[in-house]
Amino acid sequence: MRTEQRDRVTDGWSRREWLQAAAGLTATGVLGRSSWAQPVVADVEKQLVVHTTVPHNAEAALNDLVGHWLTPVEHFFVRSHAPVPEVDLATFRVSVEGMVEQPLELSVGDLQEMPQTGTIATLTCAGNRRSEHSAVRTVAGVQWKEGAIGNAQWGGVRLADVLKRAGIKPGAKHIWFESIDQVKKGDDTFGFGGSIPIEKAMADHDGVPGALVTLRMNDQPLPPDHGYPVRMVVPGYVGARSVKWLGRIVVSDQPSPNHYLAGAYRVVTENTPLAWVESGPIYNYIMNSAICDPTAEAELRAGRATVRGYALPPGNGRTISKVEVSGDDGKTWQAANITGQNVPYCWVLWQASLPVTSATSELIVRATDSEGLVQPQTVPWNLKGYMFNAWHHVPVNVT
Amino acid sequence: MRTEQRDRVTDGWSRREWLQAAAGLTATGVLGRSSWAQPVVADVEKQLVVHTTVPHNAEAALNDLVGHWLTPVEHFFVRSHAPVPEVDLATFRVSVEGMVEQPLELSVGDLQEMPQTGTIATLTCAGNRRSEHSAVRTVAGVQWKEGAIGNAQWGGVRLADVLKRAGIKPGAKHIWFESIDQVKKGDDTFGFGGSIPIEKAMADHDGVPGALVTLRMNDQPLPPDHGYPVRMVVPGYVGARSVKWLGRIVVSDQPSPNHYLAGAYRVVTENTPLAWVESGPIYNYIMNSAICDPTAEAELRAGRATVRGYALPPGNGRTISKVEVSGDDGKTWQAANITGQNVPYCWVLWQASLPVTSATSELIVRATDSEGLVQPQTVPWNLKGYMFNAWHHVPVNVT
Repeated sequence: MRTEQRDRVTDGWSRREWLQAAAGLTATGVLGRSSWAQPVVADVEKQLVVHTTVPHNAEAALNDLVGHWLTPVEHFFVRSHAPVPEVDLATFRVSVEGMVEQPLELSVGDLQEMPQTGTIATLTCAGNRRSEHSAVRTVAGVQWKEGAIGNAQWGGVRLADVLKRAGIKPGAKHIWFESIDQVKKGDDTFGFGGSIPIEKAMADHDGVPGALVTLRMNDQPLPPDHGYPVRMVVPGYVGARSVKWLGRIVVSDQPSPNHYLAGAYRVVTENTPLAWVESGPIYNYIMNSAICDPTAEAELRAGRATVRGYALPPGNGRTISKVEVSGDDGKTWQAANITGQNVPYCWVLWQASLPVTSATSELIVRATDSEGLVQPQTVPWNLKGYMFNAWHHVPVNVT
Repeated sequence: MRTEQRDRVTDGWSRREWLQAAAGLTATGVLGRSSWAQPVVADVEKQLVVHTTVPHNAEAALNDLVGHWLTPVEHFFVRSHAPVPEVDLATFRVSVEGMVEQPLELSVGDLQEMPQTGTIATLTCAGNRRSEHSAVRTVAGVQWKEGAIGNAQWGGVRLADVLKRAGIKPGAKHIWFESIDQVKKGDDTFGFGGSIPIEKAMADHDGVPGALVTLRMNDQPLPPDHGYPVRMVVPGYVGARSVKWLGRIVVSDQPSPNHYLAGAYRVVTENTPLAWVESGPIYNYIMNSAICDPTAEAELRAGRATVRGYALPPGNGRTISKVEVSGDDGKTWQAANITGQNVPYCWVLWQASLPVTSATSELIVRATDSEGLVQPQTVPWNLKGYMFNAWHHVPVNVT
């Protein structure tokens, strides 16, 4: 079963298979809901560090991350607020509503028939490295280490094209996304959601769409855990804005009232209604970097150590200009080599051969972006443990 | 002339004088615009470090700041985006409009007749300590050092009372403030403005109003540079939200479109339309502290040095629990004594007797708030140089 699932995704789905699925057909004919739910949601076997199973929250082991600039699905972190919803492609639609001239109900087939585009973009959780905030003062939530990040190729339809088809009314300012999942919070059940500014929705960043209504991940249909059949991907924004299992797009003059825009994913230091309205939503992710190899408490020999990791440029379209590592508490820094691609909205992988001595108690990395801004040495704590991007320290033992 | 102006304010205005002024009368009868403009706008002689004269931007010398928990007007920083407007009290009105049941046109007399309240609150510019951001990378704007802060007693009418009198319509979310001043930006001329969330406008923080329609500063009519005849004071928020020379209050379901809410006073790292919409407005100020005495490059004798300064709790209603100073680069810290009042929305003054040696090259201060959060060691740079609140360092020479 394990091998079978994996092969199914590895072998890929042809466009014909996709269109059949979208039309509610396979080679053997019309199928009902339960039949569709199973084969299509068959998932690749994950090789992740699991935090929770339902909803599924899991991150990559750091050694796995640095092996591939394009993260394979099995090593791509999963962040969910609710169980994977069942989907019947025959009836599944994404609605486009609110301040539009013509509301739309789009099937997967409808989306497949629109102009397709592909883009590579890194997604990262706003809570990546939350455990380092917790080391200062415990914060609730999934205690992510440095593995809640991944870089993939995404395929689908530019959100701008969908919105143009619906026709945006004057005065629109925000685009809401709402999932068909069922988040339970206290007595409430609702779909995960959020919004982005309309300027981002309509943006074209030198070919990278501001937001992509996404059907494919690494040239395969979206895996269930990653939003099958349709998700948003918003390059440069924290993962929470790339709503999975997309069911509804709303054009509005207001930001989304959804809890995950209005009452979470904001940097606050206290949990009061006033504090939440006083803080703006997090959109862009910020520059970050991590040492993935060696990992914490590794035993090293004095001499030269190979150090590898990732660095993420800020989500505003800059690139990484420099990654530096230190084995002497930041007194001296050595530039690492960026291995492979270095493009906006994507991480870089890097490697360095760093002298270490018996005096070396930790390795440190910091990144610099293409405007010369350096990753901060420290960052202030916040209540929800978001946006931790201080210099990354890895304790090691050198003999 | 200098003495005369100063005495006039120092001697104070009686309530009777105020009411006469508000009614367009003095003891000698009705006066026209020019007559009113002059005596009432007569200002105290300032003892400030002047950055610009028109508009007037000036900050306190640090030694002056630590002398008084309630900052005298002559040492209270001035931040203006336009020249002081002339005012004719006979015709001056503050309008209250937008999503209200009953628009209002309030004269100073009308405001005087409403229930008066007083509150002590610290105001500080979002750009206080901007020069330290500029030390990393030059940012435009007034190069404030640590003196763009002051603590005063403010008197006037709770904004909540004004809004209740007008009647707020359902769906209102933001309260806009607009000045009668005339800011020139490119070809545009407009009044300085901004907005606050309605929750803040209606808040009562254990007796401290969320926002005060302010007529008096330190028991005197507002000095011209501080917003005569009416200004907003929003305790806990950066100074920019405490709009001076208030002419208009608008109730809306949207944040103010004014440049100083939508296109300034936000933490951004690049100047693009998208970056501005992606960042939220700055509302609360954040915890800060500064050594005011000794000042930079002071000559000290080895032994014990008296160190004095201020510390500001975050603008969310917390207080300062601890101020610590170090003479050995942060290896060890000594608690300072908080001298005088320690209440929410107000700074504290503090003093320490710190051992210094020939190895001491700088003094450092950091504060801790009542929830145990410590001021950050470093802060990320931003394009407009706002919210600098890293540990404050003062280089000294010890012999």
